[in-house]
Amino acid sequence: MDIQIEQPPVDRVRQKPQGERRGLVLINTGNGKGKSTAAFGLALRAHGRGKAVQIYQFVKVPSARFGEHRSFEQLGVPVEGLGDGFSWKSRDLDHSAELAREGWAKARQAILGGEYFMVVLDEITYPLIYGWLPLQEVLQTLRERPPQVHVVLTGRRCPQALIDLADTVTEMQLVKHAYQVGVPAQRGIED
Amino acid sequence: MDIQIEQPPVDRVRQKPQGERRGLVLINTGNGKGKSTAAFGLALRAHGRGKAVQIYQFVKVPSARFGEHRSFEQLGVPVEGLGDGFSWKSRDLDHSAELAREGWAKARQAILGGEYFMVVLDEITYPLIYGWLPLQEVLQTLRERPPQVHVVLTGRRCPQALIDLADTVTEMQLVKHAYQVGVPAQRGIED
Repeated sequence: MDIQIEQPPVDRVRQKPQGERRGLVLINTGNGKGKSTAAFGLALRAHGRGKAVQIYQFVKVPSARFGEHRSFEQLGVPVEGLGDGFSWKSRDLDHSAELAREGWAKARQAILGGEYFMVVLDEITYPLIYGWLPLQEVLQTLRERPPQVHVVLTGRRCPQALIDLADTVTEMQLVKHAYQVGVPAQRGIED
Repeated sequence: MDIQIEQPPVDRVRQKPQGERRGLVLINTGNGKGKSTAAFGLALRAHGRGKAVQIYQFVKVPSARFGEHRSFEQLGVPVEGLGDGFSWKSRDLDHSAELAREGWAKARQAILGGEYFMVVLDEITYPLIYGWLPLQEVLQTLRERPPQVHVVLTGRRCPQALIDLADTVTEMQLVKHAYQVGVPAQRGIED
């Protein structure tokens, strides 16, 4: 129950960053919670600043109506499910792969079009690691995008080449999870 | 540029969790990005499910108008800044400590009152590790809260006793950050 008391930080004269403001590639990966919710939080922040945001979800089905979909609808932020929830519903993996490629074509156009401040590619690592999307094309799209466009990618086991290309990468590490002690998923928390 | 292709998961008959649905204590800690934004994403999800959410921010000032504040205002989710942004603005630490204690009294009441589905205590670890809030009282409040209330706590260097008490803990690890290569903070991304 002890706590290590620390001193608050003193004012530091921070070196002003020398770089330019520009669109970033941000990745949330790892086995812990918070990869998608942190991407949603970023979208919420950008939207609040009056920026155009588009969210694509590579696993969720188009009809998904989780809490986040309802709130983003209220905000007027478009969220598009591109998948078929393959990990528990579909066993037609050829169809899942086809959906991923069709979805990526849309997302690619949104990134390259330059009309969005931020494009979120939620759970895109799964179609990548299942070999459904060509990693090279994703990397190339990110490299060739208009310089002001921010792209946020989420999902476990992010390919190293994406990490190398990204500007900001966070690994969400699972320390513990309520599921491990038998608490079931709950509406408003998990979906 | 190589990528290790994996097989999609096969359908598993999952053991149904035996525990009860109940309010959780969720913590986002670590030095990486995404602690607060993931808490905002959870609040967004809960709100979308029609649940009552209250967000308290222990470092932000009451007048803060970042992107997230503007979006939550649009959603009708109350966000209250309890601090004075002490780490860069105030040097009157006695005042900062007093604000933290006053803010905690409000947050404590919201948690114990039981009318909220979720209470977010954003950046609460800072007043705790600076010795401004009594850790014992925070622990006791979490233990004695109505069982259906979810509490989300964020901030670096979370005290171990809080981790021990929590149901779900994620450590956001910094893999890399755009700031490290000189890109300044940007509106819509950092605030």
